[in-house]
Amino acid sequence: MEYGFLLDLALILVSTKILGLITRRYQMPQVVGALLAGLLLGPAVLGVLQPSDFLTSIAELGVIVIMFSAGMDTNLQDLKKTGKAGMIVAFCGVLVPLALGTILMIFFNRGELSYPGNKLLQNIFMGTVLTATSVSITVETLKEIGKLSTRVGNTILAAALIDDILGLVCLTIVTSMAGADVNVGIVLLKILLFFVFAAVVAVGALWLFKWYDQRVEDRNLRRFPVLAFVLCLLMAFAAEELFGVADIIGAFAAGLIVANTSKGNYIASKFSPISYLLLTPVFFANIGLKVELPKMNATIVIFAVLLAVVAIGSKLIGCGLGAKFCGFHLRQCVQVGCGMACRGEVALIVANKGMAMGMLNPVFFGPIIIMVVCCAVLTPIMLKFAFKGDSAYDGLHQSDLVDSLEQREQLDVVAQQLLEAEKQLRRSDDD
Amino acid sequence: MEYGFLLDLALILVSTKILGLITRRYQMPQVVGALLAGLLLGPAVLGVLQPSDFLTSIAELGVIVIMFSAGMDTNLQDLKKTGKAGMIVAFCGVLVPLALGTILMIFFNRGELSYPGNKLLQNIFMGTVLTATSVSITVETLKEIGKLSTRVGNTILAAALIDDILGLVCLTIVTSMAGADVNVGIVLLKILLFFVFAAVVAVGALWLFKWYDQRVEDRNLRRFPVLAFVLCLLMAFAAEELFGVADIIGAFAAGLIVANTSKGNYIASKFSPISYLLLTPVFFANIGLKVELPKMNATIVIFAVLLAVVAIGSKLIGCGLGAKFCGFHLRQCVQVGCGMACRGEVALIVANKGMAMGMLNPVFFGPIIIMVVCCAVLTPIMLKFAFKGDSAYDGLHQSDLVDSLEQREQLDVVAQQLLEAEKQLRRSDDD
Repeated sequence: MEYGFLLDLALILVSTKILGLITRRYQMPQVVGALLAGLLLGPAVLGVLQPSDFLTSIAELGVIVIMFSAGMDTNLQDLKKTGKAGMIVAFCGVLVPLALGTILMIFFNRGELSYPGNKLLQNIFMGTVLTATSVSITVETLKEIGKLSTRVGNTILAAALIDDILGLVCLTIVTSMAGADVNVGIVLLKILLFFVFAAVVAVGALWLFKWYDQRVEDRNLRRFPVLAFVLCLLMAFAAEELFGVADIIGAFAAGLIVANTSKGNYIASKFSPISYLLLTPVFFANIGLKVELPKMNATIVIFAVLLAVVAIGSKLIGCGLGAKFCGFHLRQCVQVGCGMACRGEVALIVANKGMAMGMLNPVFFGPIIIMVVCCAVLTPIMLKFAFKGDSAYDGLHQSDLVDSLEQREQLDVVAQQLLEAEKQLRRSDDD
Repeated sequence: MEYGFLLDLALILVSTKILGLITRRYQMPQVVGALLAGLLLGPAVLGVLQPSDFLTSIAELGVIVIMFSAGMDTNLQDLKKTGKAGMIVAFCGVLVPLALGTILMIFFNRGELSYPGNKLLQNIFMGTVLTATSVSITVETLKEIGKLSTRVGNTILAAALIDDILGLVCLTIVTSMAGADVNVGIVLLKILLFFVFAAVVAVGALWLFKWYDQRVEDRNLRRFPVLAFVLCLLMAFAAEELFGVADIIGAFAAGLIVANTSKGNYIASKFSPISYLLLTPVFFANIGLKVELPKMNATIVIFAVLLAVVAIGSKLIGCGLGAKFCGFHLRQCVQVGCGMACRGEVALIVANKGMAMGMLNPVFFGPIIIMVVCCAVLTPIMLKFAFKGDSAYDGLHQSDLVDSLEQREQLDVVAQQLLEAEKQLRRSDDD
């Protein structure tokens, strides 16, 4: 038996936590910290950590649970309320990066960087990586400068929610096309069938949870998270094996379904510690481990810089245009664009999936990570600049989305206080 | 990429849960259900599930977290209060099974069942497997017949707690001896050094947690479980690599330390979902997967029957004698003996460790599983028989041990109600 995996895991947990805290202090998401931890410890820099079967296994499960949790955190009810503005901003904010990312790739996906397979799909895949916004940095920054409860803030939150889903729809289509000799008609039929399948499963699962909820007394709650996890695993498997759709899409769909059951919040609360104690740090550190800096020649560095420029520029243009269509002032359009410019987890997960499927040349993985880090560093700076001198509050309430995040955290604190109280009680009994 | 691991995991979760619920209905622990799930799905019977790298990785981590959680659930304060009776019953209840198990093995560890390595250590190892009592079935049965709050009930609880620790001390010594050309003096020195190391780490960790607890505001609680997990992993690694002691002992020691910090209960509550959602089902199902029935010839079947007889008989004799020394009546001695007869998780974990270290011939693994299942089936029957016609309550309160388990479950219910209330609140806001 080998015990190295214990040390590897301890190293990953410590380094991702420390770097996560440091990056958070500088208003970057903790994901960037975890990525940097993997980069630093991995073969690219220090070489202390090597990719291993153990880490790969945990990371494979990790991405499924991360997407499942993302699904559970996406409230479809909120989606209905987002209104036209969010919808239009999201659409434009997906189409422009998709197009510009594809065009950029057309210029670079050739010569020494050429990769076997369908060139067009590979190019579109890079566009897909650029579609999904990561809104957490924007939320933090807007909170700090007191601009979250504004019309601009609410539009950004709504658009980011929709844009995640649109990004995943793009991924669904692109990955479905990846099989050899695919017939576009059959692919579209399979995607359609997957959505029908998901809808049927949703109805069945909601009914099952409701029926079960009424039968089970309050003490036996553990079976709900177990049932939800089984649903997630089966949908991920079915998506991949039966419909040729990415497994992470199946997991995300399962999360959406579970969020709408009566035990949705309870189940999400049970998956949270699995994520932050094990799966999330390992997944993102493992992504960092895979980067090999020696492969980065001059062309790749140029590509990395251009990718970051296209990533930010395309969201600025796309979301800005969308906001303009909705009657925002020019200044507000820039604010919306800056707020939507950040990329994060989803971009990395999509890129990782693309490498596994042979749709992304691994040499482009480094530039994608650099792009994510650049976006994370630049977004708060751009946002603060865009809001400078802007003191007009329009008095809207903070979005429910943020409320729900905060309520969950507050609940954690309450639960902790209860635990402490219980311990105190037991201690006083002992005396 | 292979997606079979998604289906494997779903199968394991569903089957362990269903069989766990069935075995619980018949008053057997859920571990037996998980074992049977692995046996049934695995190569031994249906052959639907095969051992895989993925399952092995999860199971390797699983046993560490299970022992860590066991450590967190062991309250050293309770240990101090158990008194002389529990101590004496535990000691006799460890020595007699250790001796009888070793003697049984002397007769069988030869001829075709012979296994390379130190015969004496292999024989003592089988004795070690028989040392640790699993008290959960007894607790359930005594609760049901209303005898938990009696002197006998309390003695059993106290003895089971101590006997787990004594069993792990035996394991520590036996595994330390397993190295090639070991010098007994050096081994004992290393074990002593490990205890010194654990004590130093304990003082350091308690100080660190206290200092950190005062510095950190209430919202950032996540770092405590992360810190505790890192401690567990490092101690498991150090135990194995620096002191030649089993990694699971290091994890258990880390659990004991964490239980004594101010955040002990909170941390334990965060590890609970990781255990029941992923690690425990996979670990025990994986144990079932490893059993190959075709290897079970007549000799092995005879050994299995004798092992079960020795397992139950040795606890009856050992614990019964111990109770006699403490002035219990003969009838009560039988009750204590029956209550201590059950084996469970720890026996399987120890046996699994022994196989990995080459100290246990894999052909003996089947009999150990059969022994665990037999004990689980027979203990409640024996207990009910031993208490038949016995209506004398001595009016002691239920042990704190059981209280704390119940309080934790109640808290789960309260937390759930809070979550529901929050959801209701949010819904009414939406209207």
